[in-house]
Amino acid sequence: MTTQVIVLNGGSSSGKSGIARSLQAVLPDPWLAFGIDSLIEAMPASLRESGDGLDIAEDGGVDVGSVFRELEAAWMQGVAATAGAGARIIIDDVFLGGAESQLRWQKALGTLDVLWVGVRCDSEVAASREIVRGDRAQGMAASQAETVHRGVVYDLEVDTTHTESLQCARTIAAQATSCPAGRPASSVGRAHHGPRQGAV
Amino acid sequence: MTTQVIVLNGGSSSGKSGIARSLQAVLPDPWLAFGIDSLIEAMPASLRESGDGLDIAEDGGVDVGSVFRELEAAWMQGVAATAGAGARIIIDDVFLGGAESQLRWQKALGTLDVLWVGVRCDSEVAASREIVRGDRAQGMAASQAETVHRGVVYDLEVDTTHTESLQCARTIAAQATSCPAGRPASSVGRAHHGPRQGAV
Amino acid sequence: MTTQVIVLNGGSSSGKSGIARSLQAVLPDPWLAFGIDSLIEAMPASLRESGDGLDIAEDGGVDVGSVFRELEAAWMQGVAATAGAGARIIIDDVFLGGAESQLRWQKALGTLDVLWVGVRCDSEVAASREIVRGDRAQGMAASQAETVHRGVVYDLEVDTTHTESLQCARTIAAQATSCPAGRPASSVGRAHHGPRQGAV
Amino acid sequence: MTTQVIVLNGGSSSGKSGIARSLQAVLPDPWLAFGIDSLIEAMPASLRESGDGLDIAEDGGVDVGSVFRELEAAWMQGVAATAGAGARIIIDDVFLGGAESQLRWQKALGTLDVLWVGVRCDSEVAASREIVRGDRAQGMAASQAETVHRGVVYDLEVDTTHTESLQCARTIAAQATSCPAGRPASSVGRAHHGPRQGAV
Repeated sequence: MTTQVIVLNGGSSSGKSGIARSLQAVLPDPWLAFGIDSLIEAMPASLRESGDGLDIAEDGGVDVGSVFRELEAAWMQGVAATAGAGARIIIDDVFLGGAESQLRWQKALGTLDVLWVGVRCDSEVAASREIVRGDRAQGMAASQAETVHRGVVYDLEVDTTHTESLQCARTIAAQATSCPAGRPASSVGRAHHGPRQGAV
Repeated sequence: MTTQVIVLNGGSSSGKSGIARSLQAVLPDPWLAFGIDSLIEAMPASLRESGDGLDIAEDGGVDVGSVFRELEAAWMQGVAATAGAGARIIIDDVFLGGAESQLRWQKALGTLDVLWVGVRCDSEVAASREIVRGDRAQGMAASQAETVHRGVVYDLEVDTTHTESLQCARTIAAQATSCPAGRPASSVGRAHHGPRQGAV
Repeated sequence: MTTQVIVLNGGSSSGKSGIARSLQAVLPDPWLAFGIDSLIEAMPASLRESGDGLDIAEDGGVDVGSVFRELEAAWMQGVAATAGAGARIIIDDVFLGGAESQLRWQKALGTLDVLWVGVRCDSEVAASREIVRGDRAQGMAASQAETVHRGVVYDLEVDTTHTESLQCARTIAAQATSCPAGRPASSVGRAHHGPRQGAV
Repeated sequence: MTTQVIVLNGGSSSGKSGIARSLQAVLPDPWLAFGIDSLIEAMPASLRESGDGLDIAEDGGVDVGSVFRELEAAWMQGVAATAGAGARIIIDDVFLGGAESQLRWQKALGTLDVLWVGVRCDSEVAASREIVRGDRAQGMAASQAETVHRGVVYDLEVDTTHTESLQCARTIAAQATSCPAGRPASSVGRAHHGPRQGAV
């Protein structure tokens, strides 16, 4: 059974997008890369800064409104259907709700074979990269660094604090394309007998 | 029955993206805007310039490879599933294959209620806008201006040659939100008894 | 005497940038295009939204702080020096202070041969293009449409309401490269015996 | 005497732009950031890929034409004039010609107080970051990693291989704002009694 979906979860400025692009470069087959940023890009400008949509506070805190959640749920169904139709997919997301966010994806992805990847980055380093980017609300990286991993179960975790994105991608790609004998077919089964629990 | 999907078809630099953004601004509900550009953005960089992916010639001619077509087909399923799950969607596409491209979308969208919109622009004006943008292969606008409409059946056509994008969007929005008494529920039925044939 | 600097002045969303890119495409020699947007891009992120820098109100009103003005004044000297060293330059600016802004440029540009161009656009049309762009504070286009031309003296005015950017650029290029017999060498002299006064 | 200009020189993907943005964030005064990328952005699209302008080979090799060099020389004068008029400036450049490129800047900057900074990055790491960015010609990072430092004299060198951009910026900022007693006023004088020679 081959991996059909790779889900990258990590806080803002942890290096997810770089890893996603690197994965596309190193994986032997063509993979589509979608992410929470591409969903936000597809939304009306008015939703990007409103109570019903996305509310980014001065301190980098993010509130997600009900309309945003509805559109996101429909989009998750669409991502699952795209994978179900045969396209391999990398998802780059920020699990603001931790385990609860993972549950939403699990329901949407159903029986697809998913590789769950935690993307870690030391909080202080992520905060410094946030300053370097210059286009993010200061404080987002630090506030999300730990919380997005709460209760999340991974097949694999990478840490970009001291490791380049490309190297992280190679590690992930190796696991995504390996076919261990007794590996169960579904992501759900797989999650049960191996991955360690994310930090709480 | 309300419109669930608005498909905008037109040549490069005909003004589709501007109309899509305008539609998001004027339509009363939140609509997601996806398009062929967002699909290309999701593909590996290597596919954007290769025989298997997208080949853009110096004269603006575009060749689409088999891998691109497979990923596109899966993506169309995903867009349909997103709409099926309740999100209203604007699609912005270039029907390189004319009627054949429309057929692919019709199969993917199934029984969803679709509003098919042709976005026209005088070939010379589109070519001049292509120069202004500065980031497109010269010649693409002219070569696509007519061909993308060949055999395509529309519910509505707009022309950006002398009409602002926002005005075009208002015309489209009016039709998307109207509920004529005898209007059939499915796009297929609707397409049969009304829309005029695109230019050949 | 050949034109060394073309100054385009117009309100937000009047079409200046498009004309600048078009000018680069149609003018026979290579011209550098600088503009107020490129200056803002060069500033620290912190200045883009602060009292000392640039303050953009919800209604699109723009306040310019003292630090911004100092950096801008130095930048104007730099643009003049670049032109003085032989590079032809297109400047794309928004004269928030009308005639006063033009005076600042005249002082900076000194004896360089300048073609002053007013870029007009019907206020309502500019406002509609602002919505289409989706990345500007709503109201900026309308509030600037007339005020930026107050008391400004032009060699030439173009109007993008019904004319494509490329066509406007061709009109400007024709004048920039023409060499009328008795044409005075300096922009100051030229300004005195010809250009009509901007609207008040 | 305070530093008026900070020149960052390093190969493609060595981290210069990130350091420039970080410097703007950590330096107490407002600094303008210009760079070779902003110059290229100001050039006509036609010059970005032509023999007279910039020629980027498939292997990432860069050829610079005569027209490019003329515009660049004028732009350097402009940057110097901007600094001379009182704006503090960070320059982010790639010394394709090594010591010769530095000489061009030294002539342009004249008696301004310059801090010359070498930005190093292990060739393999820079190449991996190039893949992650996905928008650069593969091979550029590796081919420039050493050559751009040939014969160049620095006041300070930083290495982004294992150090975050923000930390590098703090090191540079500390030196840019320090005022050692016997420090000579001009960059030329300063360069003579301290900085070590770049790698040959």
